[in-house]
Amino acid sequence: MTFKQKFQNIVKKNNSLVCVGLDPESEKLPGGISQFEFNKQVIDATHDLVCAYKPNSAFYEAAGIEGLQSLRDTIAYLKKEHPEVPIVLDAKRGDIGNTAKMYATAAFDVYGADAVTVYPHLGRDSLEPFFSYQDKLVIVLFKTSNPDSGTFQNLKVDGVNYYLKVAQEIKSWGIGNLGVFVGATYPEEMKSLRDLFPDEIFLSAGIGAQGAEIEQIVKAGIDKNGEGIMFNASRSIIFDKDPRTAAQKLRDEINKYR
Amino acid sequence: MTFKQKFQNIVKKNNSLVCVGLDPESEKLPGGISQFEFNKQVIDATHDLVCAYKPNSAFYEAAGIEGLQSLRDTIAYLKKEHPEVPIVLDAKRGDIGNTAKMYATAAFDVYGADAVTVYPHLGRDSLEPFFSYQDKLVIVLFKTSNPDSGTFQNLKVDGVNYYLKVAQEIKSWGIGNLGVFVGATYPEEMKSLRDLFPDEIFLSAGIGAQGAEIEQIVKAGIDKNGEGIMFNASRSIIFDKDPRTAAQKLRDEINKYR
Repeated sequence: MTFKQKFQNIVKKNNSLVCVGLDPESEKLPGGISQFEFNKQVIDATHDLVCAYKPNSAFYEAAGIEGLQSLRDTIAYLKKEHPEVPIVLDAKRGDIGNTAKMYATAAFDVYGADAVTVYPHLGRDSLEPFFSYQDKLVIVLFKTSNPDSGTFQNLKVDGVNYYLKVAQEIKSWGIGNLGVFVGATYPEEMKSLRDLFPDEIFLSAGIGAQGAEIEQIVKAGIDKNGEGIMFNASRSIIFDKDPRTAAQKLRDEINKYR
Repeated sequence: MTFKQKFQNIVKKNNSLVCVGLDPESEKLPGGISQFEFNKQVIDATHDLVCAYKPNSAFYEAAGIEGLQSLRDTIAYLKKEHPEVPIVLDAKRGDIGNTAKMYATAAFDVYGADAVTVYPHLGRDSLEPFFSYQDKLVIVLFKTSNPDSGTFQNLKVDGVNYYLKVAQEIKSWGIGNLGVFVGATYPEEMKSLRDLFPDEIFLSAGIGAQGAEIEQIVKAGIDKNGEGIMFNASRSIIFDKDPRTAAQKLRDEINKYR
């Protein structure tokens, strides 16, 4: 099954565009609990309310070998207990051909993720090893959610912002399993990218803790069927005292504008 | 001790600008040997001929948890047996502030590397968590060695190539522990960046397997003292039947043009 099919099924089943970011920062965990145990609680509480889970590799790497075991165990648990929910490994990888192949192996074969985030800046030969996994989604980072993202991403190339120029070029490659990353803090950029990629699956972050306006960003990001996008929230759900209610609230709020 | 001091000491001691890339692709290892054991042999054979070692994280990640144990063991071995040789973790990381902090923790605190490679494209707030480790070198990927690197890196912004525009902006921040990455396959770009950063430490890759012309790239990359740059070679040294001789040859060839 392709990522797109899996994603369309779960969006229908759970009536949700909420992606929960599994970012278990060690310092914030209740004493003695592993990252995996923490994630398991979040997953058990939210799996029927989400369209995807997105572990960010950084939080596991910072916890050393043990952290990476938690990442591996989290993905294995999801695939066993909730195989219908897609897993996006937010790893923001990118390297030259030979090495990019190793990163693709790690994301898709070692960890078994359904999608991965990648940098576009090294060019097509650096992305092909990811694209070659045709059932996986390769989510390219075009426009990020952070305050300083415009410094380089919005530099003007022939009167067009750099991030959009990069997107136009990649569009011309005609890739079947391309995903599009846009920060939820930039609704105009979201709209530009949705206009360019009407049918692609989008991933957006920053709708929770980073406080983006929900109505505006949902309307800019959804496809013509009111779907086609994952809105990721991490801290605002996983560190809420009641993650289930927090996920449900965000889901319902997003659904108002679809 | 700052990275710069450590680097200047080893360049003098070993009379070398050769960085050996510890990229032990599992499929190419002799049967039954771990990545760590393989690296140990390479290190034992070359440690007095190099100015740095550069493990690329991808090759370890592709080997799963066991691979990351080999990465950890390799760095620990170097720090114990050859503490005078700097270790560059080639991880090509980059994420927004909170998460970038986790990647910096992983590179510098968990693994204990002396330097790390990072993407600039998310902007200053994504780089600050790395720069804040003032004794570590933060090597920013400006221009990569692969054939397609020009597609995005050489887009024109106000008549200047994008990679150089990014470099000019970062130069203006006045960062003390900034390193500069340029592929050895692009001598003109190397020269542009050396002109912009006369005193910074450079890292360059592709001088071995990727077949760049040595004289041209050495002359373009060295600083006014004939130093200030690491030329990385991986496969052409570590998979040679005699890594010591291969490293020595490359060192001497580079030294001819310093």
